[in-house]
Amino acid sequence: MSSIVVNEELPAALDRIANDVDACFDAILPVPQDARARLIEAMRYAAIGGGKRMRPLLCVTTAGMLAVDRETAVRVGCAIEAIHVYSLIHDDLPCMDDDALRHGKPTLHRQFDEATAVLAGDSLHALAFEILSDADRLPDPFTRAELVSCLAQANGANGMAGGQMMDIVAETSEFDLPTVTRLQQLKTGALLAASVEMGAILGHLPAEGRRSLRHYAHDIGLAFQIADDLLDHEGDEELAGKALRKDAQAGKSTFVSLLGADRARDQARALVDQAIGHLEAYGREADLLRAVARFVVERPN
Amino acid sequence: MSSIVVNEELPAALDRIANDVDACFDAILPVPQDARARLIEAMRYAAIGGGKRMRPLLCVTTAGMLAVDRETAVRVGCAIEAIHVYSLIHDDLPCMDDDALRHGKPTLHRQFDEATAVLAGDSLHALAFEILSDADRLPDPFTRAELVSCLAQANGANGMAGGQMMDIVAETSEFDLPTVTRLQQLKTGALLAASVEMGAILGHLPAEGRRSLRHYAHDIGLAFQIADDLLDHEGDEELAGKALRKDAQAGKSTFVSLLGADRARDQARALVDQAIGHLEAYGREADLLRAVARFVVERPN
Repeated sequence: MSSIVVNEELPAALDRIANDVDACFDAILPVPQDARARLIEAMRYAAIGGGKRMRPLLCVTTAGMLAVDRETAVRVGCAIEAIHVYSLIHDDLPCMDDDALRHGKPTLHRQFDEATAVLAGDSLHALAFEILSDADRLPDPFTRAELVSCLAQANGANGMAGGQMMDIVAETSEFDLPTVTRLQQLKTGALLAASVEMGAILGHLPAEGRRSLRHYAHDIGLAFQIADDLLDHEGDEELAGKALRKDAQAGKSTFVSLLGADRARDQARALVDQAIGHLEAYGREADLLRAVARFVVERPN
Repeated sequence: MSSIVVNEELPAALDRIANDVDACFDAILPVPQDARARLIEAMRYAAIGGGKRMRPLLCVTTAGMLAVDRETAVRVGCAIEAIHVYSLIHDDLPCMDDDALRHGKPTLHRQFDEATAVLAGDSLHALAFEILSDADRLPDPFTRAELVSCLAQANGANGMAGGQMMDIVAETSEFDLPTVTRLQQLKTGALLAASVEMGAILGHLPAEGRRSLRHYAHDIGLAFQIADDLLDHEGDEELAGKALRKDAQAGKSTFVSLLGADRARDQARALVDQAIGHLEAYGREADLLRAVARFVVERPN
């Protein structure tokens, strides 16, 4: 059913969100004329001009479906992206994954230095909450408080950081499919789900309405990670702009190692169909969200 | 004038806040029965049972003067302390200050490992905002939003993290007194000032009332850092529970190197007198805040 979803808006939406996120970070991060200049330059290096902007895309598309002002939604999307970027900076550090390339350019600690990378990550982490608590741009305190709650939960030990800890343990343990699923729900799924949820919060969607969007987000979060494992397994390093096949070399359990590539691909497509099924209460206004779900597993990198 | 302030409550207040902060972190951080256990154990190792708890003390004392429920103030104090502890963890990393001891025990990356230290710091950072956005414990969304805004600003590139960047630059630059003052206002002063300000937010103090408390906080923040430089210069490593005299070895400009010990000590005392002067609108209910100001420069470690 969902395989016939075609959306001509998607390429334009991808271009537009990439430009909007870059412009927003550019405006938020002016380089000061003091000794903090190096820190802000490092934050800009990591935050501007790279990545697919999946999380802002999900937030802005959900908010757009609910008629939220785009500029507001982009700012909230940038708060989420700031969390994502900080997690990549820290993940790339020598004591973590020790990666040399990210989005086709040197990782932050290679371009600057490790201390600056730690601080730039910490500062982007703080920036996310500065953006969400800016009373001039997001005037409703109830909405601000809800957005902060959603993002903080997705991000901490019971969300993304917890998933990263499990990922470190996975290097020396044999994880089964339920444990890998749980790991990925925390490491990647929590922030992707928060992206949809925060769009819904901006749209003042009541709890019942949010439930189906949460199911949608949950399914595409898992599909996204399976697609990531497949790209890691079969993808092109140049196109990906980073080192691939590190999981297999480290002997880590992934969806591909546990299911095989064919079953993993089937599973990802089934999850996308299921995700799109959760949008059945919506008409044409949700077509872009349907197209994003499809893109999650069909993206080239 | 202020030198006659004697407060018999202070020793009890110091003991009480230490116990309350430990109990609060203990309750907030149960160890889960999964692969995240190591992360939570690391967070507990760093957050429980160490430090003077100056920031929670300032928050809880200010809130107490304004008749705020103590349990609520302690939770907010723990959010601030979580930020302070995360900054110490990251500051101690090999790529930063490379410290082996903190509060008389091995630093987190020595006791666990570097990757766990990075993640535990990140998770404590997130925990601060989880605590402040907990609608069950802090029911007023306007207050939650204000607390988040205050803490996020004190913590990011325009606050603590910006000061840490300046501190790194200070290792290879000759900073003058105004620049060192600015550095310390960001690195240490911003979070100490936020501690007082967040107590005032909890107490729903209007803007005029907050101004004098902000001046108080600003002065003791600077006095605290001068006292820190003096302790670093003259203190006992065993009592401090960490390595001392690293700044002098690194040739870094400090208040002591720029002013000399005697003038630095006079300056710290003058700032404390000035801080206490800002409390003149208050009666006996501010005596503990006055005693805290005095303690800031007279503490043994």
